[in-house]
Amino acid sequence: MTSILIKNSWIVSHPRKILRGNLYIEDNLISEITPKNMEADFVIEGRNLVVCPGFVNSHTHVAMSIMRGFLDDMEFTEFLRKTSEIDARMEERDIYLGAKLGIIEMIRSGTTLFFDMYYGEDIVAKVAKELGIRAALGWAVVDEDKTTQKGNPLKNAERFIKEYRNEDKIYPMIAPHGVYSCSDETLLKSKEIADKYDVPVHMHTAESREEVYGHYKRKGNRIIEYLSDLGILSPKFMAVHAVWLTMREVKILKESGAAVVHCPTSNMKLGIGGYPPIPEMMEYGINITIGTDSAATNNSLDIFREMRMAALIHKNSRWNPSLLKAEEVFKMATENPYTFLSLKGGRIEEGYLADICIIDGNDLSMQPLSKSNIINDIVYSATAQAVKYTIVGGKILQWKKHLQEILNDINDSEVFLWLSGMKNLEN
Amino acid sequence: MTSILIKNSWIVSHPRKILRGNLYIEDNLISEITPKNMEADFVIEGRNLVVCPGFVNSHTHVAMSIMRGFLDDMEFTEFLRKTSEIDARMEERDIYLGAKLGIIEMIRSGTTLFFDMYYGEDIVAKVAKELGIRAALGWAVVDEDKTTQKGNPLKNAERFIKEYRNEDKIYPMIAPHGVYSCSDETLLKSKEIADKYDVPVHMHTAESREEVYGHYKRKGNRIIEYLSDLGILSPKFMAVHAVWLTMREVKILKESGAAVVHCPTSNMKLGIGGYPPIPEMMEYGINITIGTDSAATNNSLDIFREMRMAALIHKNSRWNPSLLKAEEVFKMATENPYTFLSLKGGRIEEGYLADICIIDGNDLSMQPLSKSNIINDIVYSATAQAVKYTIVGGKILQWKKHLQEILNDINDSEVFLWLSGMKNLEN
Repeated sequence: MTSILIKNSWIVSHPRKILRGNLYIEDNLISEITPKNMEADFVIEGRNLVVCPGFVNSHTHVAMSIMRGFLDDMEFTEFLRKTSEIDARMEERDIYLGAKLGIIEMIRSGTTLFFDMYYGEDIVAKVAKELGIRAALGWAVVDEDKTTQKGNPLKNAERFIKEYRNEDKIYPMIAPHGVYSCSDETLLKSKEIADKYDVPVHMHTAESREEVYGHYKRKGNRIIEYLSDLGILSPKFMAVHAVWLTMREVKILKESGAAVVHCPTSNMKLGIGGYPPIPEMMEYGINITIGTDSAATNNSLDIFREMRMAALIHKNSRWNPSLLKAEEVFKMATENPYTFLSLKGGRIEEGYLADICIIDGNDLSMQPLSKSNIINDIVYSATAQAVKYTIVGGKILQWKKHLQEILNDINDSEVFLWLSGMKNLEN
Repeated sequence: MTSILIKNSWIVSHPRKILRGNLYIEDNLISEITPKNMEADFVIEGRNLVVCPGFVNSHTHVAMSIMRGFLDDMEFTEFLRKTSEIDARMEERDIYLGAKLGIIEMIRSGTTLFFDMYYGEDIVAKVAKELGIRAALGWAVVDEDKTTQKGNPLKNAERFIKEYRNEDKIYPMIAPHGVYSCSDETLLKSKEIADKYDVPVHMHTAESREEVYGHYKRKGNRIIEYLSDLGILSPKFMAVHAVWLTMREVKILKESGAAVVHCPTSNMKLGIGGYPPIPEMMEYGINITIGTDSAATNNSLDIFREMRMAALIHKNSRWNPSLLKAEEVFKMATENPYTFLSLKGGRIEEGYLADICIIDGNDLSMQPLSKSNIINDIVYSATAQAVKYTIVGGKILQWKKHLQEILNDINDSEVFLWLSGMKNLEN
């Protein structure tokens, strides 16, 4: 059993109350917050540090990090065409390298847990374990005639869930891609698999108007109504995007206990139009989380920028600068997604998982620093640059040694060479 | 005459064409872009570096960096009340420390030139010279009965302009605060001073609906119409914000040759509502620039996040993901503001000012890196973290040594102690 002592730092404890003290980690748990000095295997001098819960990126397609910067400023149909063309070219090595690039990026920005949707999640799981991050991995499911996966997506998903459900720090999920790519049957079968193994359903939902009105034409109802009628919604359902909803659908979501993943940057970059009714969801007490989506639509997996974006867009769209306060957004990116997974995490509290982000209070973005502006600085001005340590399950993650490997390898990945139209970086 | 050679790097040359080669700087100018190897006093190994024009923050109140994190999530009237209460408390030392904190932050994020509006610009000028950044400094002018400045604002402004107009890298301006705080007479006198010394006018314009409709009630016309009638507009006028404009006003701006400063984050944080008609301004060929505004409304002076925000919001508000392409936004944050000041800068081109931002191509935000995604990566995924060197007028700026000083001093600044309600950081 190893122990870590973070001495004399600012601690963002629960509920986002700022203390000054020592934080003692034993094995994978936060064991004590105390003014006492204690002995530990590893001591971090915390004088200028801010200790806060690790951040959670609640929706991404991490392997797509390899496509960063190649899918920008284009019409949505062109974007979809090009993305699926690239997806079909992704070999195992590309998925491995893309996932590694993205996971390093998340660890660097203080992310301790992420939710993913893709095929090849077994490869992503391998990288997550290699790097030590906690990962909820949703195997993407579409109808068999629409897939670029080898084999049947439902069977692949079930195999993945069976294989990984007892794996440390890995939380397999099933991830139906959307109502436009999954039939009733595929959705029902997904739900059946989720129930059988007691895993979450992570699904793109009501992202674009085309999706919502296309569905309405086919089925005669709104997407959340439809999913409710099918019996898919539950406290283990995560509605990703949830932009184009009626108030009736917000109520249905609330009653079902489902969670929502808000991905503001991705929505904006794709010109989705409007914003999800987050203020109303907050009023209803829906469990709201935040996701970056992939590097193709963001183009960053830095959760700080995503918190900031979430805090800003609703202020402007509702003409109300006091909406979505820093503290509320902070909770969406820390505590809420842990709660969704029924994990005791996302808080700095005794007995909780030692999933922690340690921020350098001397970073410019955190200056000037006082008890009363720490959380505002984290949400509105900090970036990955301010992160000093990312700790998951009591282990300080070492991402730097993996970075050089990526820099060497990514340049000859097949997908990158194809995207850049190069054999290699010219010299 | 000193020289710098940046060897064998990616060069974002004009017009945003990516070359591979050596960049030779002699004294304060870019002297050659060449495949040849040359000798220089200082050599930077550029193999993994991206050399691009320095970035420009076209609107801030840099001294307000000392207020970061203390003015968030509040109603606009409360925000204004509190800001002016703090402004009145700012002593010379607070302005000095705030300016230093903000300028270090800008240099760290590759900013080579910034436009400021505040009183006490002589102190800001002193810090700018100390740190080596290029600065266009607008002394804020309001009616004498509304000011917190000592003495008459117009006289202060004129004195400042006279004293600094021949100072190296300092470009004094006059900065009428807004139509709600400046009478016709104050505006006309500001314009007279601007003309007398041939300096720009930098002014808050049509930021909020309250401002626009308040003005309409008083004067019976829209703000740009009014400024045009008064004869204030010219190619040396910078309309900051310019959110609530009619198309008629956009045309008037175009005809006057005035420039616009777009400050998207600040507008969003204050819940200004809507967005300035940037796509229409682009069609008209108006000189559009980008500003962070102060740390009270942003809360960061990182120009990368501001470029990203500008690129994203119009896509969403116009339901069109191909609007405001990365290249176009890049130009607004580099070339356009140099053009406004009639400076040969903001481009990597022979004979242009050696105002340069050098980015680490190995930073995660720039990976994977190829000729075809460099500019997209800079606009959509990079932050200050990726910046390796900021060069102004051929000099590599050394901000790190100033940082420790700030960390020591800022904690006992009067304004910070008052804002945080502390005598000092508790320990």
